[in-house]
Amino acid sequence: MTSAEPGGDLGLLSPMRAAAETAGDTGDAAVLRAMLDAEAALTRAQAGLGLVPPEAAVAVTAAARDGAFDLRGLVVRARSGGNPVIPLVADLRTAARPYGEHVHLGATSQDIVDTALMLVTRRARGPILAELDQVIARLTALAGAHRDTVMAARTLTQQAVPTTFGLKAAGWRKLALDARDRLAAVTLPVQLGGPAGTLEQGVALPGRFAAELGLAEPVLPWHVLRTPIADLAGALAFAAGALGKLAADVLVLSRTEIGEVSEGVGGGSSSMPHKHNPVRATMIAAAARQVPALAAILYGSLAAEDERPAGAWHAEWQPLREALRLVAGAVHDAAELLADLRVHPDRMRANLTLDGTTGSAAELVARALEEK
Amino acid sequence: MTSAEPGGDLGLLSPMRAAAETAGDTGDAAVLRAMLDAEAALTRAQAGLGLVPPEAAVAVTAAARDGAFDLRGLVVRARSGGNPVIPLVADLRTAARPYGEHVHLGATSQDIVDTALMLVTRRARGPILAELDQVIARLTALAGAHRDTVMAARTLTQQAVPTTFGLKAAGWRKLALDARDRLAAVTLPVQLGGPAGTLEQGVALPGRFAAELGLAEPVLPWHVLRTPIADLAGALAFAAGALGKLAADVLVLSRTEIGEVSEGVGGGSSSMPHKHNPVRATMIAAAARQVPALAAILYGSLAAEDERPAGAWHAEWQPLREALRLVAGAVHDAAELLADLRVHPDRMRANLTLDGTTGSAAELVARALEEK
Amino acid sequence: MTSAEPGGDLGLLSPMRAAAETAGDTGDAAVLRAMLDAEAALTRAQAGLGLVPPEAAVAVTAAARDGAFDLRGLVVRARSGGNPVIPLVADLRTAARPYGEHVHLGATSQDIVDTALMLVTRRARGPILAELDQVIARLTALAGAHRDTVMAARTLTQQAVPTTFGLKAAGWRKLALDARDRLAAVTLPVQLGGPAGTLEQGVALPGRFAAELGLAEPVLPWHVLRTPIADLAGALAFAAGALGKLAADVLVLSRTEIGEVSEGVGGGSSSMPHKHNPVRATMIAAAARQVPALAAILYGSLAAEDERPAGAWHAEWQPLREALRLVAGAVHDAAELLADLRVHPDRMRANLTLDGTTGSAAELVARALEEK
Amino acid sequence: MTSAEPGGDLGLLSPMRAAAETAGDTGDAAVLRAMLDAEAALTRAQAGLGLVPPEAAVAVTAAARDGAFDLRGLVVRARSGGNPVIPLVADLRTAARPYGEHVHLGATSQDIVDTALMLVTRRARGPILAELDQVIARLTALAGAHRDTVMAARTLTQQAVPTTFGLKAAGWRKLALDARDRLAAVTLPVQLGGPAGTLEQGVALPGRFAAELGLAEPVLPWHVLRTPIADLAGALAFAAGALGKLAADVLVLSRTEIGEVSEGVGGGSSSMPHKHNPVRATMIAAAARQVPALAAILYGSLAAEDERPAGAWHAEWQPLREALRLVAGAVHDAAELLADLRVHPDRMRANLTLDGTTGSAAELVARALEEK
Repeated sequence: MTSAEPGGDLGLLSPMRAAAETAGDTGDAAVLRAMLDAEAALTRAQAGLGLVPPEAAVAVTAAARDGAFDLRGLVVRARSGGNPVIPLVADLRTAARPYGEHVHLGATSQDIVDTALMLVTRRARGPILAELDQVIARLTALAGAHRDTVMAARTLTQQAVPTTFGLKAAGWRKLALDARDRLAAVTLPVQLGGPAGTLEQGVALPGRFAAELGLAEPVLPWHVLRTPIADLAGALAFAAGALGKLAADVLVLSRTEIGEVSEGVGGGSSSMPHKHNPVRATMIAAAARQVPALAAILYGSLAAEDERPAGAWHAEWQPLREALRLVAGAVHDAAELLADLRVHPDRMRANLTLDGTTGSAAELVARALEEK
Repeated sequence: MTSAEPGGDLGLLSPMRAAAETAGDTGDAAVLRAMLDAEAALTRAQAGLGLVPPEAAVAVTAAARDGAFDLRGLVVRARSGGNPVIPLVADLRTAARPYGEHVHLGATSQDIVDTALMLVTRRARGPILAELDQVIARLTALAGAHRDTVMAARTLTQQAVPTTFGLKAAGWRKLALDARDRLAAVTLPVQLGGPAGTLEQGVALPGRFAAELGLAEPVLPWHVLRTPIADLAGALAFAAGALGKLAADVLVLSRTEIGEVSEGVGGGSSSMPHKHNPVRATMIAAAARQVPALAAILYGSLAAEDERPAGAWHAEWQPLREALRLVAGAVHDAAELLADLRVHPDRMRANLTLDGTTGSAAELVARALEEK
Repeated sequence: MTSAEPGGDLGLLSPMRAAAETAGDTGDAAVLRAMLDAEAALTRAQAGLGLVPPEAAVAVTAAARDGAFDLRGLVVRARSGGNPVIPLVADLRTAARPYGEHVHLGATSQDIVDTALMLVTRRARGPILAELDQVIARLTALAGAHRDTVMAARTLTQQAVPTTFGLKAAGWRKLALDARDRLAAVTLPVQLGGPAGTLEQGVALPGRFAAELGLAEPVLPWHVLRTPIADLAGALAFAAGALGKLAADVLVLSRTEIGEVSEGVGGGSSSMPHKHNPVRATMIAAAARQVPALAAILYGSLAAEDERPAGAWHAEWQPLREALRLVAGAVHDAAELLADLRVHPDRMRANLTLDGTTGSAAELVARALEEK
Repeated sequence: MTSAEPGGDLGLLSPMRAAAETAGDTGDAAVLRAMLDAEAALTRAQAGLGLVPPEAAVAVTAAARDGAFDLRGLVVRARSGGNPVIPLVADLRTAARPYGEHVHLGATSQDIVDTALMLVTRRARGPILAELDQVIARLTALAGAHRDTVMAARTLTQQAVPTTFGLKAAGWRKLALDARDRLAAVTLPVQLGGPAGTLEQGVALPGRFAAELGLAEPVLPWHVLRTPIADLAGALAFAAGALGKLAADVLVLSRTEIGEVSEGVGGGSSSMPHKHNPVRATMIAAAARQVPALAAILYGSLAAEDERPAGAWHAEWQPLREALRLVAGAVHDAAELLADLRVHPDRMRANLTLDGTTGSAAELVARALEEK
């Protein structure tokens, strides 16, 4: 049967993540790739400062790019030391012979894992921001198109006064803009501190290392100064929640009895073929239920004792990667949802039991759309 | 006995908060004060736009400032409607006679509660930032004074290589700077949307309202666009964690067997008079264990359905106020801790079992201290 | 204005808690009462074993019961040592003169705080379980009365197939039964370990102490064996979630467009007098959003180092009390909600767009109602 | 390079999980296996009641056992409907020809996913409980062997009074017993409700289904009555915390300056070859930092609206599986840690700066060891 893949998780329990091929950007293979890129970049940076011979940089770069690395083996061998860099360095040294001694020179495991996580984040962030831009563009169009589409505003589940669908969409758009800004603003630095963060190789090296990888240069080694991780936690929790608001509204308005919007391509049911479920909104809602708790783990890991803590650092890795994936999936689902969203102004009008005006809704939409 | 105060919480279970008098800034009385300030400011803003007569603004302002409001009664009466503004408005209308009809004109409860929470936050933030500045100043001095004080770096509980206490303090300082920046950067806007966020009274009013209170003017009513709350959640979780790192280190270094630092004024024990506990670090650590979870609740409340959700908004209030208090307490404790911290360089030297240099520690301290 | 109560929280930001008079059972005054009860019980238990003279037990009991204790003062004085027992013992010693030396003999602060929290929990649990029984009774009646009331089942927001309101109510009832069982099953022991948990006064004393207070006798001092706290965390999170399911359903079915149930006494709105909000369901939903995060803090405090940790213990107090309060409020709101709930079978019938049978719904209700 | 496995996670970021081969029990392949087992068992149960022909049960069982199922393909195809059962049923129907029409008869996706998660849990629980028994056995021996080994008790990081290592180990043992009891007590039922939980196929079927799989028979379909999930959340959070206490103590006592215990086979460092890190304790501590937050997600999913919620159910899957894995890893690490733990009574004696007796420590150990 499926015995060929013992233990490999491909997302069977996470349909709210992006499809497997997108998840590959944050999967174990991508993390391994990023760790190898970090090691190679380190050697090149060191060569640039004359700390290793140029031939070593060439050899290590080639070995990192072309070598065969056994992911499963690395995972198993990671257990005894508690991180995957220890066995990876051994394998890379072998692959880079006869320059193996120049691999991971003066670095510590945390330098490579943290840098790799920053690389993986940076690589995932590009497509996430691009899709968020799509979300924003679609919401801009939606808000404009429905600036005067009257519907019921609902507070504590009850119809309250009239509002417009344009104003609602403008609100979704504002949250998406805020999410975009916060995610884009997170600074992603290389990590380079050496065994206990005293940077024995000198303060010129991190800048070179950063330049090799296109990451930021930190002021201090941040082995226990986890600002980038905490900032990511907040930005990811924000993004999940922002899209969670949009999803929560689509779910309400999609209800059979309300029917004011519907997802264009409805998910089916294994047992009720007639059913047309708002699947993408459901996936986003499921992601929004998870990311805040993962963020809490990451914020908790700020309290990292000593120069490398016993547990707080290790506790970050999987939650960070999972939060990144969930947000990537939620953004992807939001973009698709909006591409297909059907709006039913006639149902909005029919459902409206209230008298009253829409107040300043139109003007609010106009103001909101001025914000970029 | 204590029957005079049935139910009033003064912090008996929260010694990690600031002392009662400081907590008054976030206590129920302060929140009530802020709600009254918001109502009065609204009436003044409306008078400025000719929406109510100027005498009404004067009367409501005086009533809000000087009237007697029964906090306990308001709490009890808040239950039927689910928020305290409904009974408060009734009482303020009475107190402002004969101008009572101009109280809370066109506003909704959420406008007042949200604005009040922003006021309370703004009022608490000033002292918090001031004390954070003290923390930063003390850490600047500490880092400079101990730039060359050699000590053991510890990773995964084991002595690793030498480092300096100045570098450690510079790291604490960096986290405190980051915390300060994030907390200071949060925009705190008034809330004014009317019953369902369509701002029937016109788009000119929020700006006036904001000017009356010294808060920001939002682009859109944010009844269900909870960016300010989420930003506060992240900033507060960051601050708690940043100080949590400092506390975790003080706790390690204070251990009897390590003795490299000690709190100047040690907390006693009810049973072991000789004991000298690192109480302030303990209080900070306790706060750091709570704020991330409170932040998770707040991030979860971003997914707020409709134009006012049934639960997500109400779920914010107490966690936000508690997070604010815990951070205020932690910052206060950190400032006191640093004012009294005893550093024992002789113990640092004696404990050091390792050979080696301190790498670039001195230069890193110098670089770090350039950052403001 | 309200300057008479600086800092005292009475629940202004927690309408989802029970009314102030009920909250008095978990308020600071109740906790103080419980600490005094614990100190007095300890002295009586010690007298029973001849460790203190019987007159001392009489004097301490009287002093604890009748003395005047300044709650505010205790809160302020608690700060230097990090817990309120240190100043409380000083005051009780004074009040019990000339037997003051027999107060708190051989005990540590944690013995008193933990025992007090168990007392407060036990005292709150009685009414909570009683109200849960009311909830169960009302759900039993509801399930029976509506065994054949056909309505739409909804999955992922879409009408699916027919079901019955009786089956839905039977499900709510099952969760309430489960919640009751879990909450009732939590063992609440006294705490008595002495300064570092070695119980210098001998293993006979905890049993006497427990008997004095009607709490359980633990096998070991549990200063750092936090099973009772963790069990409470799980039971409270379960109860909040169980009622949260009921509330979530009432909120859906109360929607203007669905109208299949409504809260009997609806909460009003400060701005929309016609509105009839499902306030109690909203309050329960707000509680259900908070308790899981508070439980996470409590589970985190299981990892308590040494014989008394620096932070993990202190971090339990306020979250435990808050979780207890939120559940007490949610249960109270659920009992009231069910007492008044209006069911509209005609709307259920009118909304039903589906063909089909109700399957085994009636039989499932019958089976469910056999479970007690 | 590693392009052969795009996206497959094998645990590269989770060294705190059990080794890959053990994780296979909770990996996607194991979940898929469990879903197939559930489908086959359902058909057999139906055959037993004459709902399908016996040949169909044989064919479906064979197809589920021997068929080739493309995990990656299922993951991708799961996205449109939001769960993996929809495409799995299609594939199984093909594989079971000509009896395909009898596959998944009358069931819904949730019946299969929930049953599969219960199967996976039950299969993982056996080894977890067995290893917990090993942990308990080793702690029993440790407590007995060190009943009189005097050491310092530490409270708030300071040496307090003498205690014994036997008492400390007895405490760890008590927590492990409590964890074992809680995990063993969780009832794991099959799920069978049909499309919306009305069990159209009749109340006799779930019992047969349960018997086929060795799971419990539920009283009611529990599509939205999430007691089993919540109970697991609590038991897993408890287990992680219980082992987290043991780990926290080992980490303190392993410190270079304390040296009272050490892990037998220490993890190395990529940069400091002399270093001997307490890796297993670190891994356990990292797990203990994550499981409470995952439990909070699961408790939050109790508030599941309607007959299948839009998000709350989906949000359970990955957190439940992750919590299971982390606990499996923590228990495994604890068993190994204890098998190798070196205790240094001479250091304990040397570190002890205090006078005093060990109180009732020896008697407490004796009492504790009587508890099974």
